Amino acid sequence: MSTLAETWLGQLTLDEKIGLCAGEDLWRTRAVDRLGIPSLSMNDGPHGVRKEQDGTLLGLSKPATCFPTSSGLASSWDIELMEQIGVNLGQECRQLDVQILLGPGINMKRSPLCGRNFEYYSEDPFLAGEMAAAFIRGVQSRNIGTSLKHFACYNTEFERMTISSEVDERAMREIYLAAFERVVKKAEPWSIMSSYNKVNGTYASENRFLLTDILRGEWKFSGFVMSDWLAVNDRVKALQAGLDLEMPGPALSNGMKLKEAWQSGELAEETLDRAVLNVLSAVEKSLGSAGSAPDDLDWSFEQAHRLARTAAEESMVLLKNDNRLLPLEPSRLPSIAIIGRNAKYPIIQGGGSSNINPSCLEIPFDEIGKMLAPGTQAFYADGYGEDGEVNHELISEAVRAALQAEVVLLFAGSTELEGNDRESMDLPAGHSALLKAVASVHKSCVVVLNNGSAVDMRGWIADASAVLEAWLPGQAGGSAMARLLFGAVNPSGKLAETFPMKLSDNPSYLNFPGDSGKTVYGEGLFIGYRYYDRKEIQPLFPFGYGLSYTSFDYTDLEVARKPNEGDFVVSVRVTNTGSRHGKEIVQLYVTDPDCELVRPDRELKGFAKVELAPGETQTVTLQLEKRDFSYYHPASGSWTADSGDFVLSIGASSRDIRLSTRLHIEFAGKTEITLDSNSLLKQWLATEQGLQAVRYLAEHVAEDENLKETILAGKLRGFFLEMPLWRFIKLLSKDGTAKRWSGRMMEELFGL
Amino acid sequence: MSTLAETWLGQLTLDEKIGLCAGEDLWRTRAVDRLGIPSLSMNDGPHGVRKEQDGTLLGLSKPATCFPTSSGLASSWDIELMEQIGVNLGQECRQLDVQILLGPGINMKRSPLCGRNFEYYSEDPFLAGEMAAAFIRGVQSRNIGTSLKHFACYNTEFERMTISSEVDERAMREIYLAAFERVVKKAEPWSIMSSYNKVNGTYASENRFLLTDILRGEWKFSGFVMSDWLAVNDRVKALQAGLDLEMPGPALSNGMKLKEAWQSGELAEETLDRAVLNVLSAVEKSLGSAGSAPDDLDWSFEQAHRLARTAAEESMVLLKNDNRLLPLEPSRLPSIAIIGRNAKYPIIQGGGSSNINPSCLEIPFDEIGKMLAPGTQAFYADGYGEDGEVNHELISEAVRAALQAEVVLLFAGSTELEGNDRESMDLPAGHSALLKAVASVHKSCVVVLNNGSAVDMRGWIADASAVLEAWLPGQAGGSAMARLLFGAVNPSGKLAETFPMKLSDNPSYLNFPGDSGKTVYGEGLFIGYRYYDRKEIQPLFPFGYGLSYTSFDYTDLEVARKPNEGDFVVSVRVTNTGSRHGKEIVQLYVTDPDCELVRPDRELKGFAKVELAPGETQTVTLQLEKRDFSYYHPASGSWTADSGDFVLSIGASSRDIRLSTRLHIEFAGKTEITLDSNSLLKQWLATEQGLQAVRYLAEHVAEDENLKETILAGKLRGFFLEMPLWRFIKLLSKDGTAKRWSGRMMEELFGL
Repeated sequence: MSTLAETWLGQLTLDEKIGLCAGEDLWRTRAVDRLGIPSLSMNDGPHGVRKEQDGTLLGLSKPATCFPTSSGLASSWDIELMEQIGVNLGQECRQLDVQILLGPGINMKRSPLCGRNFEYYSEDPFLAGEMAAAFIRGVQSRNIGTSLKHFACYNTEFERMTISSEVDERAMREIYLAAFERVVKKAEPWSIMSSYNKVNGTYASENRFLLTDILRGEWKFSGFVMSDWLAVNDRVKALQAGLDLEMPGPALSNGMKLKEAWQSGELAEETLDRAVLNVLSAVEKSLGSAGSAPDDLDWSFEQAHRLARTAAEESMVLLKNDNRLLPLEPSRLPSIAIIGRNAKYPIIQGGGSSNINPSCLEIPFDEIGKMLAPGTQAFYADGYGEDGEVNHELISEAVRAALQAEVVLLFAGSTELEGNDRESMDLPAGHSALLKAVASVHKSCVVVLNNGSAVDMRGWIADASAVLEAWLPGQAGGSAMARLLFGAVNPSGKLAETFPMKLSDNPSYLNFPGDSGKTVYGEGLFIGYRYYDRKEIQPLFPFGYGLSYTSFDYTDLEVARKPNEGDFVVSVRVTNTGSRHGKEIVQLYVTDPDCELVRPDRELKGFAKVELAPGETQTVTLQLEKRDFSYYHPASGSWTADSGDFVLSIGASSRDIRLSTRLHIEFAGKTEITLDSNSLLKQWLATEQGLQAVRYLAEHVAEDENLKETILAGKLRGFFLEMPLWRFIKLLSKDGTAKRWSGRMMEELFGL
Repeated sequence: MSTLAETWLGQLTLDEKIGLCAGEDLWRTRAVDRLGIPSLSMNDGPHGVRKEQDGTLLGLSKPATCFPTSSGLASSWDIELMEQIGVNLGQECRQLDVQILLGPGINMKRSPLCGRNFEYYSEDPFLAGEMAAAFIRGVQSRNIGTSLKHFACYNTEFERMTISSEVDERAMREIYLAAFERVVKKAEPWSIMSSYNKVNGTYASENRFLLTDILRGEWKFSGFVMSDWLAVNDRVKALQAGLDLEMPGPALSNGMKLKEAWQSGELAEETLDRAVLNVLSAVEKSLGSAGSAPDDLDWSFEQAHRLARTAAEESMVLLKNDNRLLPLEPSRLPSIAIIGRNAKYPIIQGGGSSNINPSCLEIPFDEIGKMLAPGTQAFYADGYGEDGEVNHELISEAVRAALQAEVVLLFAGSTELEGNDRESMDLPAGHSALLKAVASVHKSCVVVLNNGSAVDMRGWIADASAVLEAWLPGQAGGSAMARLLFGAVNPSGKLAETFPMKLSDNPSYLNFPGDSGKTVYGEGLFIGYRYYDRKEIQPLFPFGYGLSYTSFDYTDLEVARKPNEGDFVVSVRVTNTGSRHGKEIVQLYVTDPDCELVRPDRELKGFAKVELAPGETQTVTLQLEKRDFSYYHPASGSWTADSGDFVLSIGASSRDIRLSTRLHIEFAGKTEITLDSNSLLKQWLATEQGLQAVRYLAEHVAEDENLKETILAGKLRGFFLEMPLWRFIKLLSKDGTAKRWSGRMMEELFGL
């Protein structure tokens, strides 16, 4: 039986089919009225719904709930929360007549400078993949589609529409594609959005290896692939590579090109049909029934705002808290200074396509005010102007205000912007100068930061008593900050990205953003904490790090193998040893110490967020499967887990490993390596056959007595060991002229 | 008129020609007796002549002068000395009936772990190139040939015969080929030796791009190309790529393959003839007349030994000298402890093909003894055994000996070995343990190191008062050390390579030695100090660093442009401000601060070693030419110097810049960049034509008022600026449907 989409396809004219390969306009797929095929409205996300009021590219959009951007959400490490946000966004899409939410963006944070880092989750593909999968499950549970983006290796805004990301296949598989793979397999997004850039010289939008071989062939993706807006270079090539839908539309000139290609036979009918069917299948899916689900009726901006507050609270990361300055106790606070223009004009999100018109907006200054006891004297100073430049007058005023108060709250930070990489890791100059000036004269400063990626804190971090990383926290960030600072909520976020001391510590630093049309991923696998660990560089704050107002103990790490080959259950008991209710993010890292190929020191392969009352203990259980022990083996073109020892570590951060255990694992399906005459002598000598054969040659062929003795004593060194077998034999047999050498020995002794 | 080589060629049979494409045996080219064509004996260098007594591959060789290995020689930064050593080796070759000395090796020191680092000069191609060129001029002045090796990108011993060095072209040109280019152009070596490894997937011995396009096409090399020993993979491909001579020979099976290829027409006659002619031209050259030069008669082992001593003295680098502990004053030295087995069993060179049978051997212990005043009490302890393992008994004994003496000399260090990369930067465990144990209990320790590349000193450097890097100093190292320690000679060597604090600081660390058949040069241009500078990593001792017993002042930096475009004379006055006679190595670094392409912070482009009496001042003059300001422009495939500001810095080391000046230089022959419709909007807006054209479009075509105003206000941001022109226009003209848009505007406005 045919699906509805297949039936539609059979009734379409050539022109209609070509029309369906591009949008109807900036935001919609093409409708075919005569067949009753509706258009789908596809609108930006991912931390809210941006439904343009006037249908322009970047015009004013309808009010919607603005959640924390992905930098923040990922720092919650809270799968359930992500799913709830997804559900809410699905509901909000329904309210706004949006059928597909464009997101989430799961590109890796390769450099702190990438202008869209605020839209991305992490430097780790496991964390990014898990968070994105939960988000998508939530959205799609409302029968609203998502578009997982930007596929792939899109990690800079610099010359983004032409630059080529030069990545070796193993790093691509293990890092840059891994989150996409996880999400496609676990959450089945309705669509994938190809990225602007080239990958190893070929536009992502024309990259058959990515869009067809890997995405559909290996990962079995069954949705449709759309272009990023204006990302299509050669429409015919793109369609052939697997790009179903060009956005925006209508594609007048590209439509003509498709038609010409079809007429000339260059474009096969089945290629065109496949693309159209992929798009129509989403249309068919969208006609499904979740729209009438009763929970849609429950949705309200108020409820959504409360969820946005929870999200912000879970996202924020307490980076420093000397002498337990936080939480502030209103009754014991005679005076407070609130400094920094951001406290009154909050920075809640980044710029560009994801920018939401928030349904309401909390002001941190006001929310903090609500927390204060009646007797507390409050001071305020701007500290810097709208432009963020150094303003000595405003700084002096701020210092005076600070010196009158018992505790100082310093607000700083700036937004990031699509299309513009940052030039440095610095805060705006006026913000840094303010923090430095105030923190150096006041011993009780709490810095509250708004930013989408790591910033340089060297100028003031030593002088600040406490630092709260608030990210770009969305419309409810104000109350979330206030509630965390005053202890109504216990901070529980942890960093989803390393904060390096300085930009030059970053792994991509030498090659970012690149030049001559290329950005070279010279660090290979070693992104984020994988790099800092291997290079023994102390970060300012490591991946997975975050403080709490309580403390946690870890005990009883246990590992059990499930009957299923390669599947393990790891359990650990976590106890709240402090006096406050709190949440801990438990992290599981896997180490493969003996791999012949280079591997990172440890890689995140599991995590859980657990809520504990004071004194309470819970057992946290995490699953591992064979893939979690595997690496991509470039020679065999497959994922490989070598039998041998592995180390499993439980950490409160990537640099705060609390428990670890070494275990031996035998994996079935060993990767067979066939040796040949070009294999190295050291490889042959590692086999029994090779060892015996070489000894035989030493005894019966070698004429050089020194060499003979060295072989028989097993004392050959690199000079010989690193030789391919055939060259060693050529030397030993004097190029085949040794008296007792015969070519047949190669077969008899080595089976070659 | 034909040359003798051409005449010979015309008389050769096919079999004779094929025979001449490989050696006669392990060490000689093939003779053709019927035509009176002699064979050439080609023997290992480069820090001495290794003429095998029995003709085996690595057997005992005839006594010869063992100079410091290249690590040491390069640290002398002494061009004249290098030439003298070359002359001496040329003379010694004549004594030993050697016609071609195999060397020097000028591969870059990419990792401290490379097993052959001791055979190489530097991490800097300018320094390596200058030193090697001087050496070759010296050898070849005696009508003895050299073979510049190993060409190219051969920087690890790991799987050296099969591994592929993956290097992008710009790094290859600016770093890995640059020293070869300099030497080929300045010193015209008789031959080049291709390396074992692959380069970007193709064996160096079969690499037409390297052996023909670059070497002969671009650099106009006119000598012959030989293989490294056993480096030939496919003889036919190699010959076609430009590999003239296969070594060792005779190439029985490969000779047959060449013949078959010739018979089948796969191998062109002129290809074969060209190779044979290249080899015969060297034979002809070797028949020249320098053999009877009178200075050959002057040569003696005694003279050569004195030169080896001078070389060792100039090479050693004083790394640390707290409280001016050195030089030791015999008359004020009541007692001394000499500790470390190396003092009695000196480490003078590395292992493998370069290993020399020294004509004599000085023992440091004895040479130091000669320096002592009669009354000085001397103690000795081994400290470690032959195996270098930790030996607590020997260490205890050493500590007891040390505690009896006023000053302690600690000898440590080990050799390196061809075919074996080091596993770490550590000294042998027993040596490190000894240094740590003694230095932590005795306040006046002088460490004397023997090694071929950087070592990890973290365990003891803080406790040692003085450190003398003696390298692998050759047969006269013993007296050289003694003379430096006791002030008979003032140390004047400086590091030709960075000593990092720890291995993980090294730029190649993540990718070294590689796996899966590849070693990826992910650090690109940033080798050695170029990396530490850019990454803001404090090395233990920087490139170009070395102490003296006197001090030097730098004044009066002046730059004059010569009439010749791009040529500059840089002068600086250097004064010996201390009380001892001494030599200073003056270094000139060039910085291009404004280049659009990434460039290192500073690059060595000139140096001079100047000898000064106390109080004496000399003006040092250095030359710069256009190439010294240039980078390799991958898009245009040429060396480019951009007009603009440059900074010239004079340093006592790469991290001790004493004077610098910024100057504006206009270079003729600007690289023209032609913009097209795929060039980015930001590139078009940087031109007057583009600026006007885009404004015109804003005023006359744009329908979106926001966008129009943004363009006219000059406030477009990255979102638009990073777009290719045609996509921006596609957006602006609504894919060609805007009322006032016509396709002809592209031609009219942009000339496209």
